[in-house]
Amino acid sequence: MREVCIVGVGMSQWGEVWRMSLRDLHTQAALRAIAAAGVDHLDSLYVGCMTGGLFVGQEHLASLLTDYMGMAGLPAVRVESACASGGMAVRQAFIDVGSGTSDIVMASGVEKMTDCSGGDATYALATAADQEYEVFNGATFPGLYAMMATAHMAKYGTTREMLSAVAVKNHHNGSMNPDAQYPFKVSAEQVAKSVMVADPLHILDCSPITDGAAAVIVTTVDIAKKLGKPYVKIIGSGAGTDTIQLAQRDDMTTIKAATIAADRAFKMAGKTIADVNLVEVHDCFTIAEIVVAESIGRYKPGKAGPAILAGETALDGKFPMNTSGGLKSKGHPVGATGVAQVIEIYKQLTGQAENGRQVAGSPKVGMTQNMGGSGGSSVVHIMEVA
Amino acid sequence: MREVCIVGVGMSQWGEVWRMSLRDLHTQAALRAIAAAGVDHLDSLYVGCMTGGLFVGQEHLASLLTDYMGMAGLPAVRVESACASGGMAVRQAFIDVGSGTSDIVMASGVEKMTDCSGGDATYALATAADQEYEVFNGATFPGLYAMMATAHMAKYGTTREMLSAVAVKNHHNGSMNPDAQYPFKVSAEQVAKSVMVADPLHILDCSPITDGAAAVIVTTVDIAKKLGKPYVKIIGSGAGTDTIQLAQRDDMTTIKAATIAADRAFKMAGKTIADVNLVEVHDCFTIAEIVVAESIGRYKPGKAGPAILAGETALDGKFPMNTSGGLKSKGHPVGATGVAQVIEIYKQLTGQAENGRQVAGSPKVGMTQNMGGSGGSSVVHIMEVA
Repeated sequence: MREVCIVGVGMSQWGEVWRMSLRDLHTQAALRAIAAAGVDHLDSLYVGCMTGGLFVGQEHLASLLTDYMGMAGLPAVRVESACASGGMAVRQAFIDVGSGTSDIVMASGVEKMTDCSGGDATYALATAADQEYEVFNGATFPGLYAMMATAHMAKYGTTREMLSAVAVKNHHNGSMNPDAQYPFKVSAEQVAKSVMVADPLHILDCSPITDGAAAVIVTTVDIAKKLGKPYVKIIGSGAGTDTIQLAQRDDMTTIKAATIAADRAFKMAGKTIADVNLVEVHDCFTIAEIVVAESIGRYKPGKAGPAILAGETALDGKFPMNTSGGLKSKGHPVGATGVAQVIEIYKQLTGQAENGRQVAGSPKVGMTQNMGGSGGSSVVHIMEVA
Repeated sequence: MREVCIVGVGMSQWGEVWRMSLRDLHTQAALRAIAAAGVDHLDSLYVGCMTGGLFVGQEHLASLLTDYMGMAGLPAVRVESACASGGMAVRQAFIDVGSGTSDIVMASGVEKMTDCSGGDATYALATAADQEYEVFNGATFPGLYAMMATAHMAKYGTTREMLSAVAVKNHHNGSMNPDAQYPFKVSAEQVAKSVMVADPLHILDCSPITDGAAAVIVTTVDIAKKLGKPYVKIIGSGAGTDTIQLAQRDDMTTIKAATIAADRAFKMAGKTIADVNLVEVHDCFTIAEIVVAESIGRYKPGKAGPAILAGETALDGKFPMNTSGGLKSKGHPVGATGVAQVIEIYKQLTGQAENGRQVAGSPKVGMTQNMGGSGGSSVVHIMEVA
């Protein structure tokens, strides 16, 4: 495998973007990434998207999106692993460049969720769960994560205040992110008093429905040096799966797929969690951030909630988590999320995080953890300053 | 890149398989491929599927299918490029093994089309076209290919008899394929008198709606030798795209994406079309086989129809094409088709084609051409006897 790096990144507008379609969003992010990297061509494209079919009646994104980028002809493929689709696109680009098959590859992600052609975004998202055993019986994602939260509270004493602390921290960080869908602060009281969705999760425990795209240019270190733009190395990539049904797992207070993915990524990188300076984790719900912080080995089971409440994972804490604002504040266009996580780590490691969001002390190693469904799949990347 | 090969293959039942769901079909094909290869584990899975979301309300196949194979934990991802999804799964597995990231990888494909939860398989398939410009205005795939047929007839004098000859040949071949959905012969008169779908395409010019899955084990030559099972090398892989809209192309009588994909695969393989002994092409409609035979460079524009009519592409002809029966007779579960094409070439190159379907003279080099939509994407593989 050749050494692989990220050399330019681009985000589209994120939010309820009524005036832009899926193809517009993707093209905006893609052209920004190309401009940032200063590349004059691409060798291939991997685009993460969960369900263009159910959201906007459009599959075959490889053809559609290369066409709208003005690059018809380019080898391209869509990859999907529910909400981990974006991270999987980065992984495939990493393998493609590492293998020597391609030199300059775009990994991107896109989802257009707010004008769902099927009429029901909750149904579209629920296709990430087991259709025959979970969805058929009425399960939705807020419901599944509410069960995880209830179990975690019962087993470890995790509290309402700890869940709220995740939302407060992430909205604080997101308030400094110009790309965030909801760039405003919330108080613990606001979270706790917001409308109930699935007990114990309130609306401010949930990530939003978002239109958006994100793109990064993945290439070799040699090419990155010639381009003369800031770059970071991808030193580890790991993926893992678990039973798609929450009910089939031994323990619903941990995400085994995240543990597998992190272990594989650390092994490839020759690092441990102790080497990681900051991380973007998949906080689709506040409880998810707590569970994942434990599943990737940073905190012992039951200890992440207290640590977050104590400020350990704040911007100026020992282990900054979701400096971008996370899915919670930045938004969660499901196919794009994993790519946007990589963009935040790229910005932080190259000292480009905006508006006072830059982590102090020149962080050297960052990590992203992206996951699908209730944790049925996960993908982790470890990045290092070049 | 390490040398990569295919060492075991498996097909599920194909047809209108009312008693098996998507997960059952995939598991059947996957376990058969694992048994055929004699491997004791997998390192990763790439599964091609066009639209589990629209057909059966199920995305996140990476988690679902590894789980149902009894392999929860396995790194896995779904890849999609409409009807080229299966071929793209093989391509990603090839790159994964070639890169050294994984040693033993499954490439599979699946589609469950006959009990479409959205109620409309034609709509689900149409999401491979441009939703905003083609589908919105009423285009369906039979309609798009009918326009290609009309243009090809007008420009080159391609005839009804040439279209029918494709169906007659492929049903003849498929009648010897135990996995075919429609394993019966048809006459040119039956094709020409069958019900009209979109002039000039009759129902017997069209590939069917199919439930089915297919899987192959992709590994290194060293491992294949140790397994002691028949294997064939993948010596070239190429992918390409084109405008998603038929109307945007310079010429609708050729498939540029197939030309790009074939050129790239030949370049990697160090071969030309003259070295190829037999090919599986994407005959979603009879006209597609004619256009593709020209687009991959085997026949000059306008010459494929006469050659097929003259029997050149028959089992005992100079250039056997679709010895499996093709999509036309074998069936077309869209995500699985590209993998099943690879399975036919594997069988032919290892002398295992059933029921008198084996091409004489020990073919040495085979080729597959899989495509999405009206040719918006294509993927080609070149395989060689080890």
